[in-house]
Amino acid sequence: MAAETQSWVLMATARAPTNIAVIKYWGKRDEALILPINDSISVTLDPDHLSATTTVAVSPSFKQDRMWLNGKEISLSGGRYQNCLREIRKRAGDVEDEKKGIRIKKEDWEKMHLHIASYNNFPTAAGLASSAAGFACLVFTLAKLMNVKEEHGDLSAIARQGSGSACRSMYGGFVKWTMGNDADGSDSIAVQLASNTHWDDLVIIIAVVSSKQKETSSTTGMRESVETSPLLEYRAKTVVPNRVLQMEEAIKSRDFASLARLTCADSNQFHAVCLDTSPPIFYMNDTSHRIISLVERWNRSEGSLQVAYTFDAGPNAVLIAPNRKVAGLLLQRLLFQFPPPPESELASYILGDKSILHEAGLQSRKDVEDLPPPVEIKDKVPSQKFPGDVSYFICTRLGSGPRLLTDENQALISPETGCPK
Amino acid sequence: MAAETQSWVLMATARAPTNIAVIKYWGKRDEALILPINDSISVTLDPDHLSATTTVAVSPSFKQDRMWLNGKEISLSGGRYQNCLREIRKRAGDVEDEKKGIRIKKEDWEKMHLHIASYNNFPTAAGLASSAAGFACLVFTLAKLMNVKEEHGDLSAIARQGSGSACRSMYGGFVKWTMGNDADGSDSIAVQLASNTHWDDLVIIIAVVSSKQKETSSTTGMRESVETSPLLEYRAKTVVPNRVLQMEEAIKSRDFASLARLTCADSNQFHAVCLDTSPPIFYMNDTSHRIISLVERWNRSEGSLQVAYTFDAGPNAVLIAPNRKVAGLLLQRLLFQFPPPPESELASYILGDKSILHEAGLQSRKDVEDLPPPVEIKDKVPSQKFPGDVSYFICTRLGSGPRLLTDENQALISPETGCPK
Repeated sequence: MAAETQSWVLMATARAPTNIAVIKYWGKRDEALILPINDSISVTLDPDHLSATTTVAVSPSFKQDRMWLNGKEISLSGGRYQNCLREIRKRAGDVEDEKKGIRIKKEDWEKMHLHIASYNNFPTAAGLASSAAGFACLVFTLAKLMNVKEEHGDLSAIARQGSGSACRSMYGGFVKWTMGNDADGSDSIAVQLASNTHWDDLVIIIAVVSSKQKETSSTTGMRESVETSPLLEYRAKTVVPNRVLQMEEAIKSRDFASLARLTCADSNQFHAVCLDTSPPIFYMNDTSHRIISLVERWNRSEGSLQVAYTFDAGPNAVLIAPNRKVAGLLLQRLLFQFPPPPESELASYILGDKSILHEAGLQSRKDVEDLPPPVEIKDKVPSQKFPGDVSYFICTRLGSGPRLLTDENQALISPETGCPK
Repeated sequence: MAAETQSWVLMATARAPTNIAVIKYWGKRDEALILPINDSISVTLDPDHLSATTTVAVSPSFKQDRMWLNGKEISLSGGRYQNCLREIRKRAGDVEDEKKGIRIKKEDWEKMHLHIASYNNFPTAAGLASSAAGFACLVFTLAKLMNVKEEHGDLSAIARQGSGSACRSMYGGFVKWTMGNDADGSDSIAVQLASNTHWDDLVIIIAVVSSKQKETSSTTGMRESVETSPLLEYRAKTVVPNRVLQMEEAIKSRDFASLARLTCADSNQFHAVCLDTSPPIFYMNDTSHRIISLVERWNRSEGSLQVAYTFDAGPNAVLIAPNRKVAGLLLQRLLFQFPPPPESELASYILGDKSILHEAGLQSRKDVEDLPPPVEIKDKVPSQKFPGDVSYFICTRLGSGPRLLTDENQALISPETGCPK
């Protein structure tokens, strides 16, 4: 180890994506190790639009482990952070930076302190699984800095102990979290089913839904479901295993109709189990219901599944379209029913990949106002419009897994101060 | 039979209550005979507040069977009406009215035509199980007019073929519909578990919730659930049988905590199954959710179950309080969160047994405006008020079964014209 008197700072910075489950994780068999009661499958979202970036720095001058999230210092004393730090430190290797003349031996990591800075490129409060991206990024960055050699999804099992769904953010494309059997959780890991290039025409549109309700955290919610829902165990043991097999097959063969059917059914069943919990948990609200009705009405009118929807532990809708053309038609329908509120410009209402707006033939607020009702609601009761019920939309796609950012300008910690820039 | 040239009209008039299930019926094993996939249990509501009144008239001058519902002629050609008429005619007996000199022999009923008039003393469109009261009343009145001797719940099995839940409206108090085993449905009948006097301090408050959504009919909804919900069969075969036993015990021993726990859990599970249906069915809306949250928050704050809630195939809440005192406290909470809209007077906002208002210490709109927030939401985020989200409340209680109205002034058909008055 370099002399303690030297005041060097060694850093690594990485970015990790968020993910959305298409076969849902709901219920733990072990609360401490975060071991689930069923397998789950997710798609990883493009980190350009939804990701966490984390810098981990180590220095002999650091007096304690510290962390800043979105610029604000937070406590690392929680068990979830401690589990991740402990497990990574255990697996740390020798690190040498010849240029800087730094050498850290693997046994030294236990004694050295870390400064961690992380930020999300999307609103944390929007209920978009920020903890999945955050813990995946933390574990990945720690592992890179500490030269951890990963084998067989080891890192995903560590990320899992930070936040269950974080294990699925350790890979890009389509990812399965196998529940595993071992009591120590070593086989409860994520595996990649297919990379994002395997099925790269899928388009994802997220409707961030305004909510005035205080929501039950997913940790509390799933514990209460395990304790009180008579339907959850049946779902986990009998329904999900078949759906996982079918979903794997749908992904392998790029069968959109099956992907959509299974995704919608499993989202609805997850929310059904929430409702079967005592006291019942409502994550979807009237706006969520209206988005489902919009999709179901369109699917029925076409006689085939145009798009899929899925909702996590909140009212936001994640919609999956098979290609850009259908995504454009979806965006027309969404904007017809949920136009931007009067004070809002289209450019600040559609975030992410704005090029889908061109696909939809929409350049301005005026174009949205001029949208005719979609064919499936013509001649029906005058359709209602709900400006303000959606805060904004994010257009995105499938993405790749965590990656190291080698450009030091992207680091969130200053090498001089060892604190956030 | 009296000479056809004579122009007499013979009539019977009866009133039948509506009912609300506390263990829900959802799913048929036989669509034509209306045979359910599980037992259900209901409470019969006071017919003074929620009932159907029906007059059935017979005359040799009638040329065909005709029916008027709430003053408007409707078609009797539907299978449900035809089933009820056919089954009752089969069982008709001899009838003699010495005073009027009328004699109808049982074999004559097949050839004689009926005029039927029915009306509900509550808004039909409000989603308050008007078909249960309606078919129960039709079958009961027909049976009285035609001198049908009922045995072993026969009449309930006939009412069941009009509308499944109608069989439970054939009795007062607490009623169980046993699903039965026979293919012909003869053992799928209602039985009374306890009369309304067995537990007469229960108070029922119904919140009629404004809804802009078109709802799925329960007939269509339960068919789609049977066809597509993976959870429904498990519910019907595994969950409900135990709940029925527990509910019977709770009723027998007037154990309000158990009644409330089972009622809420079963309502929530029924709506969970609706959500697990493809496409999903939403009967509850944000207002329904807020009423549940109000009750759950209160229950949690008190550490015991104060009131129970249950929702049928619509957004209306049916709330059960153990006594008038608690019902008053419930009404305070409901009116605090859902005050009457500006143009509405308290007297037209609280229907049924208005004396619960006195129990709540509320005489006027002003008293409602002055209501302090309930203790369980003090010091929390400023609670939101939702005037207009509830159309009105109905305060009622348990009631008795169908009964004949012998005062001819209450008949809905004129004995002179044979048509509605």
